[in-house]
Amino acid sequence: MSAAVRITGATRLYAIVGDPVLQVRSAEVYTQRFADKGRNAVLVPAQVGLDRFETVMPALMALGNLDGLLVTAPLKQKMPAFANCLGATAECIGAVNALRRESDGTWTGDMFDGAGFLHGIERKGQPIRGRRVLMFGAGGAGSAIACALAGAGVASIRIVNPDPERSARLIAVLQRAFPDCDMAPAGADRSGFDMVVNASPVGMRPGDGLPGDIGALTAGTLVGDVVVSDTPTALIARAIDAGCVWADGRDMHSGQIEAIMSFFAPHVAHSR
Amino acid sequence: MSAAVRITGATRLYAIVGDPVLQVRSAEVYTQRFADKGRNAVLVPAQVGLDRFETVMPALMALGNLDGLLVTAPLKQKMPAFANCLGATAECIGAVNALRRESDGTWTGDMFDGAGFLHGIERKGQPIRGRRVLMFGAGGAGSAIACALAGAGVASIRIVNPDPERSARLIAVLQRAFPDCDMAPAGADRSGFDMVVNASPVGMRPGDGLPGDIGALTAGTLVGDVVVSDTPTALIARAIDAGCVWADGRDMHSGQIEAIMSFFAPHVAHSR
Repeated sequence: MSAAVRITGATRLYAIVGDPVLQVRSAEVYTQRFADKGRNAVLVPAQVGLDRFETVMPALMALGNLDGLLVTAPLKQKMPAFANCLGATAECIGAVNALRRESDGTWTGDMFDGAGFLHGIERKGQPIRGRRVLMFGAGGAGSAIACALAGAGVASIRIVNPDPERSARLIAVLQRAFPDCDMAPAGADRSGFDMVVNASPVGMRPGDGLPGDIGALTAGTLVGDVVVSDTPTALIARAIDAGCVWADGRDMHSGQIEAIMSFFAPHVAHSR
Repeated sequence: MSAAVRITGATRLYAIVGDPVLQVRSAEVYTQRFADKGRNAVLVPAQVGLDRFETVMPALMALGNLDGLLVTAPLKQKMPAFANCLGATAECIGAVNALRRESDGTWTGDMFDGAGFLHGIERKGQPIRGRRVLMFGAGGAGSAIACALAGAGVASIRIVNPDPERSARLIAVLQRAFPDCDMAPAGADRSGFDMVVNASPVGMRPGDGLPGDIGALTAGTLVGDVVVSDTPTALIARAIDAGCVWADGRDMHSGQIEAIMSFFAPHVAHSR
């Protein structure tokens, strides 16, 4: 039984900022979580056009009863500028998807896409440490996931991305932060991997195929896909056929909700 | 049975702006009204410090899914500047307590304190037309109520206010709009009135007495008090003793909610 949502003058606000926001599930999910925890807080959608983003964000953050923000793509790379302080992942990859007001009134931002992905995979009970990873995508989600994978001790990451310069930049940044992880652009040979991750948008549209050449999957290959879909993506379908342990966009999202709910814990937020 | 409040990505936002907002009842009341009407909309508190008001308001109004605003005192006089168009009462007295987004994206503001007061009184079943009114207060609420009373055809209004210049300005403005209503500052003689209205803050604090010399009340005197209080104010207590028909701050508020819910009707608001 879910607790009833109630809004009063004392309600603390959280908002998910994007354009459009019609499709976001976070408003409903986090609002219900707050209610279930007995917190007088709600998370509302805030439709902010890209052209107004730079002026609207500081004003939203000036609301005395706003304690936190989530942002949708493509705003994550713009958010570090609005934080007074960045968490380690956000610092490393230059993107933020959640901000909270600290007790001194300053704002801390961090990026939870990678942490959510890791939680989603780890719940399946397979170790990540030492894996040799083939990853598709080096955008916002890809960067966050690569950072989380390196932090979790994978042996190597090979990255496939349409923009090789972007992959190179990401690899350079991560290599500095995680010198023990062997990182490079993926070559033509796709053998020898025991983890395949799709962090690209391929699979979001019906009829999308694989994000690229994934080599041969075996039952020992871990497969992750960031795409949220009612039916399995081509990659997840292949993972199921091969008997792999896999996690999809839903697993990643529920892992992320846990991480962000902790980040949004009430002891850190307060009224101005 | 009240309908459950639910927040999704498609939820339309309304906000009550003020500082502090902890005490506002509107957030809960309007949110429940929206739910009961089956509208996917909520009204949230937005704590905006006076020093940030001028910059935060335009940014809030730039949120694509924000369809309306309420403001608490002392912001009502600052609001006309943010509206593209003003209703008749707002135009007359230069104050706004509710704004809505129109279908063309512009904002209309109006002042409902007076309309709420009138509804509250009229529900008691006594005619207002032709009354000789003694009124305390010429601030935001007093101005709105005087405007509504003149519009409803009272014969005369005599105003008591600590700042005589303020009363004089209000009288000049209203006299232009309502030439048939006899308006003047109240003199020392407080006889001959058959309606007494308190639109001043006197009565808000426990132990407050009457707002001033109210003359003699008879059973035929209509008494109104804008103060919202769990126990009768000194004025309402006198009205009860004298057998008067009376309306207090609660009656005024519930009258105002009806008026504003109509103003916030969904056919006028839309997404940008």
